[in-house]
Amino acid sequence: MAEILMGTARAGLKTKGNDVLVLLLPYPCVASFVFTSNYFKAGSVLYSESVAKERETIRAIVVNSGNANCGTGEEGVKHAEMMAQKTAQELGIKTEEVLVFSTGVIGRYLPINDVLGAIENACTNLRPLDLKEASMTISTTDRFPKYDFAKRGELETFGFAKGAGMIHPSMATMLAFVFTNAKTDYLTLRRIHESVTQRTFNSITVDGCMSTNDAFGVVALGETEASAEDLEFELAKVSETLAKQIVADGEGATRVIRVSVRSAITPIKAREIARAVANSLLVKTAVFGKDPNWGRVAAAVGSTEFPVDPFRLEIYIGGYLLYDGKPRNENLPKAREHLLKNTEVDITVELNEGDYEWTFYSSDIGYDYIRLNAEYTT
Amino acid sequence: MAEILMGTARAGLKTKGNDVLVLLLPYPCVASFVFTSNYFKAGSVLYSESVAKERETIRAIVVNSGNANCGTGEEGVKHAEMMAQKTAQELGIKTEEVLVFSTGVIGRYLPINDVLGAIENACTNLRPLDLKEASMTISTTDRFPKYDFAKRGELETFGFAKGAGMIHPSMATMLAFVFTNAKTDYLTLRRIHESVTQRTFNSITVDGCMSTNDAFGVVALGETEASAEDLEFELAKVSETLAKQIVADGEGATRVIRVSVRSAITPIKAREIARAVANSLLVKTAVFGKDPNWGRVAAAVGSTEFPVDPFRLEIYIGGYLLYDGKPRNENLPKAREHLLKNTEVDITVELNEGDYEWTFYSSDIGYDYIRLNAEYTT
Repeated sequence: MAEILMGTARAGLKTKGNDVLVLLLPYPCVASFVFTSNYFKAGSVLYSESVAKERETIRAIVVNSGNANCGTGEEGVKHAEMMAQKTAQELGIKTEEVLVFSTGVIGRYLPINDVLGAIENACTNLRPLDLKEASMTISTTDRFPKYDFAKRGELETFGFAKGAGMIHPSMATMLAFVFTNAKTDYLTLRRIHESVTQRTFNSITVDGCMSTNDAFGVVALGETEASAEDLEFELAKVSETLAKQIVADGEGATRVIRVSVRSAITPIKAREIARAVANSLLVKTAVFGKDPNWGRVAAAVGSTEFPVDPFRLEIYIGGYLLYDGKPRNENLPKAREHLLKNTEVDITVELNEGDYEWTFYSSDIGYDYIRLNAEYTT
Repeated sequence: MAEILMGTARAGLKTKGNDVLVLLLPYPCVASFVFTSNYFKAGSVLYSESVAKERETIRAIVVNSGNANCGTGEEGVKHAEMMAQKTAQELGIKTEEVLVFSTGVIGRYLPINDVLGAIENACTNLRPLDLKEASMTISTTDRFPKYDFAKRGELETFGFAKGAGMIHPSMATMLAFVFTNAKTDYLTLRRIHESVTQRTFNSITVDGCMSTNDAFGVVALGETEASAEDLEFELAKVSETLAKQIVADGEGATRVIRVSVRSAITPIKAREIARAVANSLLVKTAVFGKDPNWGRVAAAVGSTEFPVDPFRLEIYIGGYLLYDGKPRNENLPKAREHLLKNTEVDITVELNEGDYEWTFYSSDIGYDYIRLNAEYTT
């Protein structure tokens, strides 16, 4: 496969380790990016979104961690542009071929000279992409690096991410970059990318709105023929793995919670109900306490704008029926055992009204979440 | 004033204390009730909502605490009706003149014979309404009783409530009953009631959806002439006091957070942005940690469906400007002092685009929230 090159360096934005990453693609590659839907966008997002929407290909990516370059006004946008210019100059490509990403603390200006110096250092020491090291370079509060690789015949898909999969993916920054060696055109890749985003990164811990800096890109190296179905399947697989790694790294999390809503009349209804359950603090704290509290699940199921029939729905924890129009409390001990023994726990809601399902991933919430978020500025 | 009578008794639903309350009005009184918008409604809500929508007056109220009678299927609705029948029979009134309310644990059948026995006991020992005792009787995890009284000339307004003003009022049950001696007709009272509900009980800690059992009623004794403006003002005042008492009783809360969004183009936009900030776990944990983290406020402001201009908005904590298109971090020490020294803290967002404002009340979240919700079944 044509090689993706990587350079890393330290600008001093994080307390330790490299905090600037440069990726150089072997040639202009078809690429699709989605950015946060938050209106309070970081300078880097404002800059990169405006560049990306005019283009179908990119050549390079530059990321800094430790500072979100957000809430920094016009100067923040200028800093992002300077990062792109510097990267382009060092790599001998055009400024508009470079996208810029930032993650870290909101509300502080980038020490731009330090960042530009680190970009220069990163570009003078390019080597083959190492997914683990790339993830570590862009990480902030992450407890472990996040990356994945999948192969299906000639089709190769791989990527890396950062994100301390929080209450909302929404609120901590989430950055993910996934690559494929498939040949594809921009519109096909875009359609697949949007669909994959909905089922993966937009289906982890709740509320649907994203942070000020979130971004997810897919880049196609264009070397191998692949059907759109295979490409979507593989991109979804790698993206789901990365998304689940983010959830598992939830601050203070002890359990990954898989919320499945089944037999809904529309996928949107299934998704919104799954989101409400996954987002429920009372459900999260119940899982933390190993309490199979189906009443809290039911309250979340009923809380969306979509009507549900309380006498018709069924609630299962760990596959054990706890409610089907009336309490099935005789199964509580088995459901409790499921919560005690597994680190990935299942909550399933059957609406019994249609053919659509949606799965959301979430994590429980415990004392460490409060400690981390009360004691640190993010 | 014509006397409202009260009876209390113990059915054994709570670990201790009286858990059944009966209120008898002196004659049929114009009354308006709003119930949870949750689709997973308790049996008592299903029953009382169907009764209330056919009537403009009521004679009596019966409430049990300690058991929500929710998730209990058709039997739950039947139990609520039996409670109304028993109350009517003991008081010598009609069943349809009685509304029934429940609050407590979800998913357990009411021990209906014990409840009916307690209703009988309560009705045989009627005495003048004592707001504090009424609140304590309907309380569950509340740390203190909630009641208020206001007088404006001849116009008297008073009420009591329960609710452990949580993450969402939505999720713990909130019950509130407010009385006025004003003369009014049903449609006027209904319009005022809906407006007051929006600005008070629907503007405390977030997400807009309510629990399975929430209800708020206003009852007019019809003795004193009062203008609609005065009536709305007084009802709003008492309701706001009760709502703030619920917030202040937030599980593990150390601070009440007042979120004001100003100069919006519509009241709905102001409300939804205020809700997003009030609902932000990252904002709540920052306040708990006494961290004037305006970046988290900004991220919440940008997270709704309503566009905001990040270069135009201003963010204040404790009246200190922290952001106005660029960071004003020189004011952070004063904002931190505000968070340290006050138990009611202010977060203000100026959108600088119109004339509408909205205020939401919320509370911070700390270790005790996790402890209470992980260790107890609610």
